Amino acid sequence: MAWSPRRSAGRRLQLPLLCLLLQGATAILFAVFVRYNRETDAALWHWGNHSNADNEFYFRYPSFQDVHAMIFVGFGFLMVFLQRYGFSSVGFTFLLAAFALQWSTLIQGFFHSFRGGYILVGMESMINADFSAAAVLISFGAILGKTGPVQLLLMALLEVVLFGLNEFVLLSLLEVKDAGGSMTIHTFGAYFGLILSRVLYRPHLEKSKHRQGSTYHSDLFAMIGTIFLWIFWPSFNSAPTALGDGQHRTALNTYYSLAASTLSTFALSALVGGDGRLDMVHVQNAALAGGVVVGTSAEMMLTPFGALAAGFLAGAISTLGYKFVTPILESKLKVQDTCGVHNLHGMPGVLGALLGSLVAGLATSEAYGDGLESVFPLIAEGQRSATSQAMHQLFALFVTLTFASVGGGLGGLLLRLPILDSPPDSQCYEDQIYWEVPGEHEHLAQGSQEIETQA
Amino acid sequence: MAWSPRRSAGRRLQLPLLCLLLQGATAILFAVFVRYNRETDAALWHWGNHSNADNEFYFRYPSFQDVHAMIFVGFGFLMVFLQRYGFSSVGFTFLLAAFALQWSTLIQGFFHSFRGGYILVGMESMINADFSAAAVLISFGAILGKTGPVQLLLMALLEVVLFGLNEFVLLSLLEVKDAGGSMTIHTFGAYFGLILSRVLYRPHLEKSKHRQGSTYHSDLFAMIGTIFLWIFWPSFNSAPTALGDGQHRTALNTYYSLAASTLSTFALSALVGGDGRLDMVHVQNAALAGGVVVGTSAEMMLTPFGALAAGFLAGAISTLGYKFVTPILESKLKVQDTCGVHNLHGMPGVLGALLGSLVAGLATSEAYGDGLESVFPLIAEGQRSATSQAMHQLFALFVTLTFASVGGGLGGLLLRLPILDSPPDSQCYEDQIYWEVPGEHEHLAQGSQEIETQA
Amino acid sequence: MAWSPRRSAGRRLQLPLLCLLLQGATAILFAVFVRYNRETDAALWHWGNHSNADNEFYFRYPSFQDVHAMIFVGFGFLMVFLQRYGFSSVGFTFLLAAFALQWSTLIQGFFHSFRGGYILVGMESMINADFSAAAVLISFGAILGKTGPVQLLLMALLEVVLFGLNEFVLLSLLEVKDAGGSMTIHTFGAYFGLILSRVLYRPHLEKSKHRQGSTYHSDLFAMIGTIFLWIFWPSFNSAPTALGDGQHRTALNTYYSLAASTLSTFALSALVGGDGRLDMVHVQNAALAGGVVVGTSAEMMLTPFGALAAGFLAGAISTLGYKFVTPILESKLKVQDTCGVHNLHGMPGVLGALLGSLVAGLATSEAYGDGLESVFPLIAEGQRSATSQAMHQLFALFVTLTFASVGGGLGGLLLRLPILDSPPDSQCYEDQIYWEVPGEHEHLAQGSQEIETQA
Repeated sequence: MAWSPRRSAGRRLQLPLLCLLLQGATAILFAVFVRYNRETDAALWHWGNHSNADNEFYFRYPSFQDVHAMIFVGFGFLMVFLQRYGFSSVGFTFLLAAFALQWSTLIQGFFHSFRGGYILVGMESMINADFSAAAVLISFGAILGKTGPVQLLLMALLEVVLFGLNEFVLLSLLEVKDAGGSMTIHTFGAYFGLILSRVLYRPHLEKSKHRQGSTYHSDLFAMIGTIFLWIFWPSFNSAPTALGDGQHRTALNTYYSLAASTLSTFALSALVGGDGRLDMVHVQNAALAGGVVVGTSAEMMLTPFGALAAGFLAGAISTLGYKFVTPILESKLKVQDTCGVHNLHGMPGVLGALLGSLVAGLATSEAYGDGLESVFPLIAEGQRSATSQAMHQLFALFVTLTFASVGGGLGGLLLRLPILDSPPDSQCYEDQIYWEVPGEHEHLAQGSQEIETQA
Repeated sequence: MAWSPRRSAGRRLQLPLLCLLLQGATAILFAVFVRYNRETDAALWHWGNHSNADNEFYFRYPSFQDVHAMIFVGFGFLMVFLQRYGFSSVGFTFLLAAFALQWSTLIQGFFHSFRGGYILVGMESMINADFSAAAVLISFGAILGKTGPVQLLLMALLEVVLFGLNEFVLLSLLEVKDAGGSMTIHTFGAYFGLILSRVLYRPHLEKSKHRQGSTYHSDLFAMIGTIFLWIFWPSFNSAPTALGDGQHRTALNTYYSLAASTLSTFALSALVGGDGRLDMVHVQNAALAGGVVVGTSAEMMLTPFGALAAGFLAGAISTLGYKFVTPILESKLKVQDTCGVHNLHGMPGVLGALLGSLVAGLATSEAYGDGLESVFPLIAEGQRSATSQAMHQLFALFVTLTFASVGGGLGGLLLRLPILDSPPDSQCYEDQIYWEVPGEHEHLAQGSQEIETQA
Repeated sequence: MAWSPRRSAGRRLQLPLLCLLLQGATAILFAVFVRYNRETDAALWHWGNHSNADNEFYFRYPSFQDVHAMIFVGFGFLMVFLQRYGFSSVGFTFLLAAFALQWSTLIQGFFHSFRGGYILVGMESMINADFSAAAVLISFGAILGKTGPVQLLLMALLEVVLFGLNEFVLLSLLEVKDAGGSMTIHTFGAYFGLILSRVLYRPHLEKSKHRQGSTYHSDLFAMIGTIFLWIFWPSFNSAPTALGDGQHRTALNTYYSLAASTLSTFALSALVGGDGRLDMVHVQNAALAGGVVVGTSAEMMLTPFGALAAGFLAGAISTLGYKFVTPILESKLKVQDTCGVHNLHGMPGVLGALLGSLVAGLATSEAYGDGLESVFPLIAEGQRSATSQAMHQLFALFVTLTFASVGGGLGGLLLRLPILDSPPDSQCYEDQIYWEVPGEHEHLAQGSQEIETQA
């Protein structure tokens, strides 16, 4: 069976042992360091005088659940478009994210909520952990089909650490704003994955070319991913913002931006398509660029018009990226980007960072009133001018690109270790290496013919 | 290639140019007119003394997200049942709704929240905009497979205006109740689409008959749409009602009504089916009629029994409609109703309007207590008797049918413009006219046979 | 047509008549007994002085909606893995749950909220009714493919009564804790279904063996079910707990437990799999065991480490169960368990009950502070020691197993009535007995070939 290289016992044991090792180590670190925070601990919450309605659960849990759906349903199914890689797309998303959220609870906890020797967890840590998993899944998109689960878990192990470090530098040291993560999640995840994919460049990938396309039904499965990402993106960007008008405005801006990126995606897709026809790849991906591009600015006073304009631009750039930039990336820069994360997360992420810098630079106390304190506390307190905040935001983009590039390079070197479970060039985008696949895919059709013959 | 008529450059440019024009015009109107409301504006919200917990976001956002899922996942996948029209069903739903919600923000804004020269937006406008998109998608269901995306966008352009006008007459002038839109959304959307379909009547549609059915997997995809509509319908009807008991009771009534319509649908489907077998078309659609039928009355003191009885009746009528009314509509009245919106939205919508009138007419101050003010303010204030309210509700149904019929007629004339992208009779229900479709649908199966041969 | 035995008129009418009878009887009982509770009744809610924000709707509705999605999307699609039984899996789930939630409103209402001759309904009754439906669907999983809809409705009729009785004994008489239902839902539902399946044992089931597997796409559909169950399980366990820290902690613990069970499932699946490959059956099911195992203890001070450890163990046991226990159950004990509910709900449910007993036994007033009152009121009030609570929890498991076994036995005898719609051994796992199935499943593929020939 050409498609299933017989593997040595050593190879076979890599995945189980790595899973057990990672889960075991995580559990021990949890035992030592992780404790309930004030909002989740029975004793702490009931100490003092407050209403149950004040518990953060009621302010953020619905948004968290939407984010959770995006990570596992959205990302998972978006990548099912490949005709023979559906089990791996949705399965490895499941595995990677389930590991990343635990590991990130520890890493982000050390950076952000380490108090008295303990990491305190609750709704905010859950949202942040899911965000970290999002970055890992974005990077996964660049190398989809060309890596095994052991490689992917090692990537997540490294990436979550660098994600946490970059996020700490941005939010805590540079004190920039990036609620929906145009920089911390999208730019970081995309360029980490792209550099990593460059290091793993496969000159003979055309041997698996016939498996790189979609089928009619795999495209419909992918649309499940697209639509769930699209509808819940307002919750993604607003989940960690200031309460009240902050969450409300962020959700509203994201909603408009996505609507506009959808129209520009359809417009550009038909414009550049053969014979004026639409391309599912564009609709599945570029229509989401509106969510990425306002990741930094949606909590600011972007204005509804600003949201539409930003979304429109992002959808257009993303669609053009699929048509014109992806082929160049592969042929000239030797970056093989399976899902086009450069178009969906890379360029719109950078654009979102620039937009965030611009909108921050335009902040005035007239526009924000007493709300300036919750969006730009340093400006409100007079410690920074709006221009200075804008410069910090720009610098944060530079920092993010640096962390992502160095991290992606390191990740690539790590994943090139020859003992890992990398598929051969002729077996990329193929589930059967890692999964037991039902022997007869179209049993149903044959059965039906059988019946007709009998009848 | 018979299935892909070579199109002139002019035809090819229609969709991109229309998308760009609509998005450009919408953006300009947003720049001029649309502003954050008190709950989304940083300065306005922080002016005055209130808790963040009072922000409307926390009362309506979870319901909004459910509605949003219904529009894009529910409607989109419900229409995927056609074997070769999945890309268009889910893709055009995406495009139409993304445009309609922007355009409706402007139209409904002019009618409902135009203050000091500005349209103020926030959670309520988002819910209402999604509702308007729902009406457009209902009409889409009647003409599914027989119209191109340019035609559909023009339909949305017109329908959203008339939807907003009808809604304004009902809610603001006649002051009737219709929270879940039995009249404003379902009756309006259905009859607008049916009349439009009548004007676009195709006598030779049998040329595409072989594509009008479903496949096993397209029916399963459609069930994704059905189930998401079904589970979130309580949120749909309760999203815009009065807070507190109002939202709570509306959700509860809708939940019961849907449960009952599911049982009556299964009962009737097996009763009228060949050899006692169930029909997926009935289950996919008629089981939802319970949500439609209580759209007006669910916020009233319908009683749990009333909800069950209404749902039961709606499911039964809807199922019988698919079996007996749809064929007559087509053969006698020349209305080709692809999704059977007459059965799911038309008849149950009218029934819902009548039920709303009845329940309003039975309103007493005993039954509602001090809650009468929030459900029927005019009755509570003595400006209207319950009977008068019931008469107004009835009249509102008549108004809605008129707006829908005239609008659908106008829409049909508009869509018959010969330069538009209408598919030929032999190419209806076919994705390949508008989409690049993966060349070999069953690559997977063939690949698998290849492998077996090799092995 | 061998696959569609001609049925007598009497047989054909069974399903419609039973649906109509059950719905009619339920509606009459609703008319007599069911009334809005204080939170849903216009007069009652507006009587007295409280803010709309205090309405229970805002504390529990988002969680309820997640639970609702689990019941109808999660359970429905999880069972679609069978290649020819997708319509029945998702369709009968729909029918059974829609009936069970109504019937359970009555049964649970009599036991839990019968005041002054009336059953009072609102958010809590909705959540509880959905929970009861979950137990029915778990039992359905054991007999999936081997029973007709009439049999299933009769099973639900009986099971809901026994579920309500068992729940009453546990929660009201024994006063044990079981928020997420490790005992009341999972253990009860699983062993009810397994014993029932034993009574319905089919010695010649191998005649339908060729239909018992999955296809590539049916496995992807099943993953929709898995992922929706997985992401929303934190809402399932936390939906009915005490407000504030209670809901928050329960959701957090469940989130961690599920993450750990996912890693252990992947580890064990690869370990026991042929050639080190992963098995979709394990991923689809065992990864969910982390939600089941903390059903009793997640609201307690389990600690984040405890949640990880419990989830890890449950995922491992569940995966090993699929590999080693299920074949023995069938060959030695004559229990044919289609979905492996023994592995997903049975063993993890029992383990969850034991864990709940252990954690209850460790409760101290230091760990819970003033929160002890809301988790263990009897311990807080000094009426019970922690050890006594632990003993009560253990006894509750014994009671549950007894109710489930006796109930499943009775259910099996009932379902063996020869007049019911049980499929013949050669037609198990086959939709075409109960559904009109699209004649040519692969029309699309054939159409595509047609086109290529033309071109």
